[in-house]
Amino acid sequence: MRDFSADHRWLSLNTATVRKQGDLADIIEACARHGIRAIDPWRDQVAAIGLDRAVRAVRDAGLELSGYCRGGMFHRIEARDDNRRAIDEAKALGAPCVVLVVGGLPQYSRPGSAASKDIVGARTQVDDAIAEMMLYAREAQMSLAIEPLHPAYAADRACVNTTAQALDICDRLDPKRTGALGVALDVYHIWWDPELLPQIARAGRDRLLAFHVCDWLVPTTDILNDRGMMGDGVIDIKSVRSAVEAQGFAGYSEIEIFSNDWWGKPMDEVLRTCIERHRSVV
Amino acid sequence: MRDFSADHRWLSLNTATVRKQGDLADIIEACARHGIRAIDPWRDQVAAIGLDRAVRAVRDAGLELSGYCRGGMFHRIEARDDNRRAIDEAKALGAPCVVLVVGGLPQYSRPGSAASKDIVGARTQVDDAIAEMMLYAREAQMSLAIEPLHPAYAADRACVNTTAQALDICDRLDPKRTGALGVALDVYHIWWDPELLPQIARAGRDRLLAFHVCDWLVPTTDILNDRGMMGDGVIDIKSVRSAVEAQGFAGYSEIEIFSNDWWGKPMDEVLRTCIERHRSVV
Repeated sequence: MRDFSADHRWLSLNTATVRKQGDLADIIEACARHGIRAIDPWRDQVAAIGLDRAVRAVRDAGLELSGYCRGGMFHRIEARDDNRRAIDEAKALGAPCVVLVVGGLPQYSRPGSAASKDIVGARTQVDDAIAEMMLYAREAQMSLAIEPLHPAYAADRACVNTTAQALDICDRLDPKRTGALGVALDVYHIWWDPELLPQIARAGRDRLLAFHVCDWLVPTTDILNDRGMMGDGVIDIKSVRSAVEAQGFAGYSEIEIFSNDWWGKPMDEVLRTCIERHRSVV
Repeated sequence: MRDFSADHRWLSLNTATVRKQGDLADIIEACARHGIRAIDPWRDQVAAIGLDRAVRAVRDAGLELSGYCRGGMFHRIEARDDNRRAIDEAKALGAPCVVLVVGGLPQYSRPGSAASKDIVGARTQVDDAIAEMMLYAREAQMSLAIEPLHPAYAADRACVNTTAQALDICDRLDPKRTGALGVALDVYHIWWDPELLPQIARAGRDRLLAFHVCDWLVPTTDILNDRGMMGDGVIDIKSVRSAVEAQGFAGYSEIEIFSNDWWGKPMDEVLRTCIERHRSVV
């Protein structure tokens, strides 16, 4: 397991963590100030400053990308074209993968749809849509990273809710493990899973495309936007990182915190805390 | 699958559903008014009116019990004696099983304990404690029903979070399927699980000791106390009931709704709505 205690060269910042404190250009400047080497930007943040400017800002700052957030939401009518644009943008920005949040029941992914309770059907549609998206992604040589989301989001955000389920999709759609399809594992979504360690072993290096950290707070006061800073909650983050690294994962440890609390603090304070906690508890 | 549309003879009321509107005696009277034949009372509600009075009230009203809530919380110092008392009370009240909510990390189940992030260790302790509780339960001929709780409660309420995990415990501790140990399945906790249907089939009739219903609301504004009335959320309740009945389950469909919203309404209105929805969407 890599030693993170002496520096933060393997820290990547998911830019949603400070989305309320500035635009993507501000965030990239702040990363430079704090010696952060990598980011995972969100599409809306890229769109807000323009793709060309984002590409230049990333390049000028010498930043790497640990991913691009996000594709998916497959039940939307415009999903196909939109996901192709996500791949093009990821390519322009130099991202290694597009993170997929697949969408939940159609009425939440596509407001106005007839109300459905058919989560099994929603899951089947996701399989088909990923298969289709892979055709375009392969041409672009862009990997797709399915992110299983915590079961609390099964209805409205993602009907892929366990690592096993995400890996089942990988096995069906990329049985030869070409690297075209894998998983993005966020400790927030998976820490509770009794099958976590065997499933990480099952994933293996070629399916482990991204590793995200934050923490689970008790109590959690908002199911969406009350994620904790690493060390403030109950997740044994080091043990999960140890498991992914035991498979050969050697990429960035990406910090992604959706938090009304942390969004209310100055950007420099958030980044200083991220760096400290990356060194001490990640 | 049984037809529930014509009457509510298979409706049981978990008494927490109206815990704010009256004491257990009031609730039992209300059940009689509404022709509800069964309840699942909570220990604190029994204690509040006294066990003897509760036993008499249940008997005088001709009520059956679909369970007794609850045992577990195994990380507490006093858990062993307390769980034995729960079994004695369940026996006195004529309950078919004690529902087990096993507890989460020790600092939440036992305030004052050292903070732990070792959910694997917590799970091992639960196995051991259930094994011990079974010795006393067997003498009393009382079944224990492990209730897997939604992963959102893994830290603070129960570290058993999937049906598969609960059934693994059953297989380890009661491999001969004597009926001493089984599961209480609440659609709220399990509806999202990609493994739900195969695990219900794996459980089989002898492990299916209780079936609870309510609904998952979108958005969920409070992770503990914002459960929905059946039909107001996204759970395909009929399909889950169909799966448990396909295994031979023929017991009560128990309504358990923790809801700040429903606790604010008159008891008779809540029970009328429960009966309506039991007939139309359960």
